[in-house]
Amino acid sequence: MIPDQLTPGQYDTVYNLLSLVIAAQLFTALFLVAAQPRVLPRYRQALLVSAVVCGIAAYHYFRIFSSFKEAFVTDAVGGEGTYTQAVGASFNEGYRYVDWLLTVPLLLVELVVVLALARKLQASLLWRLVPASALMIVLGYPGEISDSDALRHVFGLLSTLPFLYILYVLFVELTRSLDRQPPAVRQTISRLRILLFASWGVYPIAYLLPLLGLDGSDAWVGKQAGYSIADILAKALYGLLIYRIARLKSFADDPAFEAAEEGTAHEWPAATRDRGASTTTVA
Amino acid sequence: MIPDQLTPGQYDTVYNLLSLVIAAQLFTALFLVAAQPRVLPRYRQALLVSAVVCGIAAYHYFRIFSSFKEAFVTDAVGGEGTYTQAVGASFNEGYRYVDWLLTVPLLLVELVVVLALARKLQASLLWRLVPASALMIVLGYPGEISDSDALRHVFGLLSTLPFLYILYVLFVELTRSLDRQPPAVRQTISRLRILLFASWGVYPIAYLLPLLGLDGSDAWVGKQAGYSIADILAKALYGLLIYRIARLKSFADDPAFEAAEEGTAHEWPAATRDRGASTTTVA
Repeated sequence: MIPDQLTPGQYDTVYNLLSLVIAAQLFTALFLVAAQPRVLPRYRQALLVSAVVCGIAAYHYFRIFSSFKEAFVTDAVGGEGTYTQAVGASFNEGYRYVDWLLTVPLLLVELVVVLALARKLQASLLWRLVPASALMIVLGYPGEISDSDALRHVFGLLSTLPFLYILYVLFVELTRSLDRQPPAVRQTISRLRILLFASWGVYPIAYLLPLLGLDGSDAWVGKQAGYSIADILAKALYGLLIYRIARLKSFADDPAFEAAEEGTAHEWPAATRDRGASTTTVA
Repeated sequence: MIPDQLTPGQYDTVYNLLSLVIAAQLFTALFLVAAQPRVLPRYRQALLVSAVVCGIAAYHYFRIFSSFKEAFVTDAVGGEGTYTQAVGASFNEGYRYVDWLLTVPLLLVELVVVLALARKLQASLLWRLVPASALMIVLGYPGEISDSDALRHVFGLLSTLPFLYILYVLFVELTRSLDRQPPAVRQTISRLRILLFASWGVYPIAYLLPLLGLDGSDAWVGKQAGYSIADILAKALYGLLIYRIARLKSFADDPAFEAAEEGTAHEWPAATRDRGASTTTVA
């Protein structure tokens, strides 16, 4: 399913996108590590997990990017000609799945940790979701690397089952948790919920592109673009929202911390269920 | 529009400038990360964002530099001959646009954060400026990578609309914020405003060079020089001014901090509107 030829425009598009993913993931990871003092200690582990997710993604995209550069060559001067598959190298199509096998469970951990759910609930969620995510990835892989449309369909469908299960559980849990969060955080968690579904939703669409009747190389470029953009949204942007949630919860939990970080503290409504919060009004 | 040939002088100029940008961006990024303790906690996020901007720029200029070295070759001994476009490689003209897609929104965040504007105003500004900047970049890109003067004109004009909008909003906002800042910071913010417009103003000039009737390769070298210098001013120098503002505001907010950092505190005029500032006179 890897195209035999790419136009210069197609080549540049994939090249630029893969590089963009590296930059977005790497620098989000560095930012989150450096930003740990900007949140209370209780939320720093969520930032660390998010940094690890983005770091792993950056590492894999370095490899995907190198694989791409080796796999397509041109013998035209100044890049005006068609790119064809190189002798002795091939684009590693399954690579992202290896990445997802590590990063998707971590993404789930990241979310569960930042919501600061009760420990029993955290454990129950992760015991259900992490195996489901591994199953989802393992089922998608044969379809991805195969040249057969039929196999792509079958494994795509199978993989969609744990996919839908995960999204359902997360939706229910995120919605339930909204009531337990400080008001200022609710809007951000609501946005996180939207981002989660919007970004995860891109993957099946990208996966399907080769089955939708597009010309082979256009479908492939679209698939690379879809996965790349989805990975930026689902890991880097998601991580920055997790950071924002951690920031706001830190402020809600500890007005003195907020005063140091912001120069003033806001008035929080009484009796938020969150640990350690007190009602403080500062002029 | 990529020239077929470069003289050794032209080649060296571009080579040296691209390398200079890498150094300027990388070391500004490292400096800003290391300098976080030199400002109050409330301003450290602005430094971090600035460091991320410069770091992303350094990463992209590494790639632009590599792309340039691969794209132009010479077979003369000792570099005395003309450089021509290499077979099988091309200079990635659109690469800066990929960088700008990430770094320009972050530059806007950086500015908004260091001014410590009220949160609603911050949100309102960013919701207007960030999409406008994405639009500006996306509209410029087709003109940049095209060989057609007509397309360059059309997309250049289109891109100028959100460009002017952003500068207008920033000018109004920076001017308004001057009153709310401690006096010592006003001059620096005023300089920041000048730097912003001076540096952003170089980009359209660089973009236009190929349309101004200069010889093809001179125009291209001028464009590379223009963008490179503008990137140093708009990211690295800007980040250092942001740092200075954060330093001065830290001193204004907390004379004890200033005493620790400077060895003596200065007399601040009464009742600055800045949060948390107190009037302290220290001989």
